[in-house]
Amino acid sequence: MVRIGIIGSGNVAFHIWRQLKASNQVHTVNIWSPNINNKPEFELANVTPVNYMENDDIVIIATKDDVIEEVQEIIPVGPIVVHTSGFTSQSILQKHQKKGVLYPLQTFSKKTEIQWSKVPLFIESDTTSVLAEIKKVAEILSPNVQIVTEEQRKKLHVDGVFVNNFVNYLLSIVENHCQKNGIDKSVFNPLLEETIRKYQSLPAKDAQTGPALRNDQATIKGHLELLEGKEKEVYQLLTKAIHEKFNHDV
Amino acid sequence: MVRIGIIGSGNVAFHIWRQLKASNQVHTVNIWSPNINNKPEFELANVTPVNYMENDDIVIIATKDDVIEEVQEIIPVGPIVVHTSGFTSQSILQKHQKKGVLYPLQTFSKKTEIQWSKVPLFIESDTTSVLAEIKKVAEILSPNVQIVTEEQRKKLHVDGVFVNNFVNYLLSIVENHCQKNGIDKSVFNPLLEETIRKYQSLPAKDAQTGPALRNDQATIKGHLELLEGKEKEVYQLLTKAIHEKFNHDV
Repeated sequence: MVRIGIIGSGNVAFHIWRQLKASNQVHTVNIWSPNINNKPEFELANVTPVNYMENDDIVIIATKDDVIEEVQEIIPVGPIVVHTSGFTSQSILQKHQKKGVLYPLQTFSKKTEIQWSKVPLFIESDTTSVLAEIKKVAEILSPNVQIVTEEQRKKLHVDGVFVNNFVNYLLSIVENHCQKNGIDKSVFNPLLEETIRKYQSLPAKDAQTGPALRNDQATIKGHLELLEGKEKEVYQLLTKAIHEKFNHDV
Repeated sequence: MVRIGIIGSGNVAFHIWRQLKASNQVHTVNIWSPNINNKPEFELANVTPVNYMENDDIVIIATKDDVIEEVQEIIPVGPIVVHTSGFTSQSILQKHQKKGVLYPLQTFSKKTEIQWSKVPLFIESDTTSVLAEIKKVAEILSPNVQIVTEEQRKKLHVDGVFVNNFVNYLLSIVENHCQKNGIDKSVFNPLLEETIRKYQSLPAKDAQTGPALRNDQATIKGHLELLEGKEKEVYQLLTKAIHEKFNHDV
């Protein structure tokens, strides 16, 4: 039985809190928001005074990156302290000797259920015994736990931007075009699913097709005539990048 | 019962041929390759002399865009002639009066099964009666058939580049990083699946998150230090584009 405190009132805090609460391996899960006026939105949360955390075995800081430093200051010395950030050093938890990171590689929103069994968790600590404790807690959340270095974690975080933020931006362009074009954006679902399926089953270079790869200038020119502004710039740069990359690689 | 000819020996020709052959609504499906020395690779193909096509009800040109003009010249006048290109005008089929387009919005490769029931087909013809015939054939392939204008089809083709070619390029960057980082690229599968699921269920602006959206300069700077060359340029441009777009949109 582990006694766990969670600090934060955002999406990550909410989902970690709910999953830990639902498990029968956790003794108490306390949630605490750094903003005293911002009581967590999740109704069932057990918001406790900060000094209560000295009884916890582990405290998880699941706040925005820019308040982690301030938040770790108010945690009493004693429990293991981890944060959930993909791009913050564990050394920011300077007040605490037993410290580490528990980084979930997923995008969270309160409205959406999280399939925790599928969320990869990356854990980190300079102290072997602390790492073992963090691993135990991580494994309550997901069977998919990997120990990484800070460098590996930061690179995963960058790549998360490519996989989620940048892909979503490309899809936002398509969504806008569909609206203007009188087409339901769902017509792209099968192509999108096939694109993903190929990433999951082939080397990306074998899945690359299209005018950029073939250096089909007539089609590229025609496409550019239908685009403007940033979308046009993005098309031009990605076309150039694909042509360069796959002609060097292959 | 329809008599259908297919010209081409590539991935699109192969999958259309196989699906039509498997249906019991088609009388004969003939396949013919424009390159006489390039017998189609699909073993069961019934390669027939070109003059045989005058008995067909419809001939589908499923070749590369740049040979459509030449190929349509050798088809005897009589059958309806369509091509499968997303970015070629039907007027290129200049020898033929009964003409149109049958554009499948999917990426095809011979190794991969196609779930035809999920492939959106976009059809086009200047002649109403011809359009009705094309629709009949299209519906043998997929229940998802939509009539479009040339302009709509061309825009769909551009967007197909964003959805497939550009997303695959972003994923190729992630794949390379994972290789160098000693991480299995499959750790990104859940995040990728969630990204897609959000596109399919939310407006893209509600699914946009990350440092670019928040204009989190510290993280952006840190990410850029881990990137170089074209990847860095791509990161910079997409970050700028996200920040501009969603600050104007929201």
